[in-house]
Amino acid sequence: MNPSAPVSSSSDAVALLRAHGAAVDAQLRRLRERYSPDAPAPLLDAIDYSLLAGGKRLRPALVLETCQACGGVATVRNDRARESALAAAVAMELIHTFSLVHDDLPAMDNDDLRRGRPTNHKVFGEAMAILAGDAMTTMAFEVIATDAAPAIAPALIRELAHAAGPAGMIGGQVLDIAGENQPLSLEQLQQVHRLKTGALLTASCRMGAIAALGGKDEDSLLLAVTQFGRHLGLAFQIIDDVLDVTSTPEQLGKATNKDAGKGKNTYPGLLGLEASRQRAHMELDAAVAALEPLAQSADGLRAMARFAVERQV
Amino acid sequence: MNPSAPVSSSSDAVALLRAHGAAVDAQLRRLRERYSPDAPAPLLDAIDYSLLAGGKRLRPALVLETCQACGGVATVRNDRARESALAAAVAMELIHTFSLVHDDLPAMDNDDLRRGRPTNHKVFGEAMAILAGDAMTTMAFEVIATDAAPAIAPALIRELAHAAGPAGMIGGQVLDIAGENQPLSLEQLQQVHRLKTGALLTASCRMGAIAALGGKDEDSLLLAVTQFGRHLGLAFQIIDDVLDVTSTPEQLGKATNKDAGKGKNTYPGLLGLEASRQRAHMELDAAVAALEPLAQSADGLRAMARFAVERQV
Repeated sequence: MNPSAPVSSSSDAVALLRAHGAAVDAQLRRLRERYSPDAPAPLLDAIDYSLLAGGKRLRPALVLETCQACGGVATVRNDRARESALAAAVAMELIHTFSLVHDDLPAMDNDDLRRGRPTNHKVFGEAMAILAGDAMTTMAFEVIATDAAPAIAPALIRELAHAAGPAGMIGGQVLDIAGENQPLSLEQLQQVHRLKTGALLTASCRMGAIAALGGKDEDSLLLAVTQFGRHLGLAFQIIDDVLDVTSTPEQLGKATNKDAGKGKNTYPGLLGLEASRQRAHMELDAAVAALEPLAQSADGLRAMARFAVERQV
Repeated sequence: MNPSAPVSSSSDAVALLRAHGAAVDAQLRRLRERYSPDAPAPLLDAIDYSLLAGGKRLRPALVLETCQACGGVATVRNDRARESALAAAVAMELIHTFSLVHDDLPAMDNDDLRRGRPTNHKVFGEAMAILAGDAMTTMAFEVIATDAAPAIAPALIRELAHAAGPAGMIGGQVLDIAGENQPLSLEQLQQVHRLKTGALLTASCRMGAIAALGGKDEDSLLLAVTQFGRHLGLAFQIIDDVLDVTSTPEQLGKATNKDAGKGKNTYPGLLGLEASRQRAHMELDAAVAALEPLAQSADGLRAMARFAVERQV
């Protein structure tokens, strides 16, 4: 209700990200077994190279934390919710990683560095990088169809597929490329980011809620986490743009100042650094306010939102 | 039981392919509405360009025909089966088309012509072709999750995702590229094709059966169509290799003799043309024999298998 009330600090978020990240990483490391021995080892190597490169795991952590925030105390039913959320979290990271591998391709952003290491196509070649990305997409949907509770698997898959597809992340990437070297209005820039970054972050929250609710209609909770995800998505992207200007490649683990070099539209380019930071904090406040119906059980989500805005990498 | 008994002629198959193809095309044309207006129009144009280019629709027709063969007479339950099969058929064609668009890319097979028209990246550029392929993958899973009966959607998605992924089609493409310019044994060549072509053709049959059975365990039917799909997949690929040698680009709507030019391993290269044709007919006989448990209701499938071997394009 009152966005200026004290919220959890972003240092709590680091512990949460670490715990959720460890749970997700354990599943990601086990994925390879499902496809051996039929799958060619070099393909699985290329997939693991990007998948196990140690990202922040923000999206899967949001899935798990939202599930917890919407699920209350642990019961038998919630154990099943946790299993479904974990499948959704793993699928989310697969889709996110696929998008990074394809975005880095020479025909797209042509990046050499990602998460502090050479990009996938630099190591395995373009053909393998394209195929590794393709494979991660199919794996994402297979994981949910196999590991989530059957009653909610279709809803989770619908959510993820729509958020990743033409009216979501992939559509956003098309708009992003189309907007290079031509000035966008603030409204147009927000539309790019609502699709390119916002759709997956929002879906992460919604999938966590769907896993917790197990098919029960609780529109107020779903609406709350949807609003939270949307504001968080904008805040996150603004800070991404800011960090591209203010950080060194060593800090970010990828090339910096590349947005300007490519003629990309960014918040700092449009509003300046200070106004961009202010805007990110406005979005953070709105995200936190949206969580009111979840009361204290959403403290972890509040901390993670603050972390997304205060992070240095 | 007796594979040399008369089976339906391949001319029956043309009528079946036309009827099933029309049903699938109607759905494919309507897909665009689901993503407008949020999705960028140029992306939807690139998707439609390849999706509505008039393929043979063999895979979706197999889904629909297998569903019919396993479902018996039309009842209310079978109407729901038909809806699920249609969703699976549309998803199958989306996955197949995505694979063609990505396989044609400069980093992969670098083809200029497909289905009688310039390839996707020749018209829309490489970045858009990669993204259009990516988008078709997500759309495939969204269609099943949205339109198939919820009770069987997870099974259908698992089937499609596994057949398309690292231990299926995408794995086969990796093996195919890796095998260029080095001689494979017949056993190795069959492994390439079991994954690259066979996995999706087998999954087409299995998804049709799953839709018809609606979650009921009827292992003998599922086993029969699985065996049918595997033999059909090999027969289909052998004939594909043969046609690459014996046809003109005008007949096939794509470059011919390209396998040899790329140092690809093929059945005619390994066995010669005549022995390859004989082998395709052996696989056809085995496919037809596998359908014995379905008796007369599988006449359409038999006709389609014969068509796959006798086709000139």
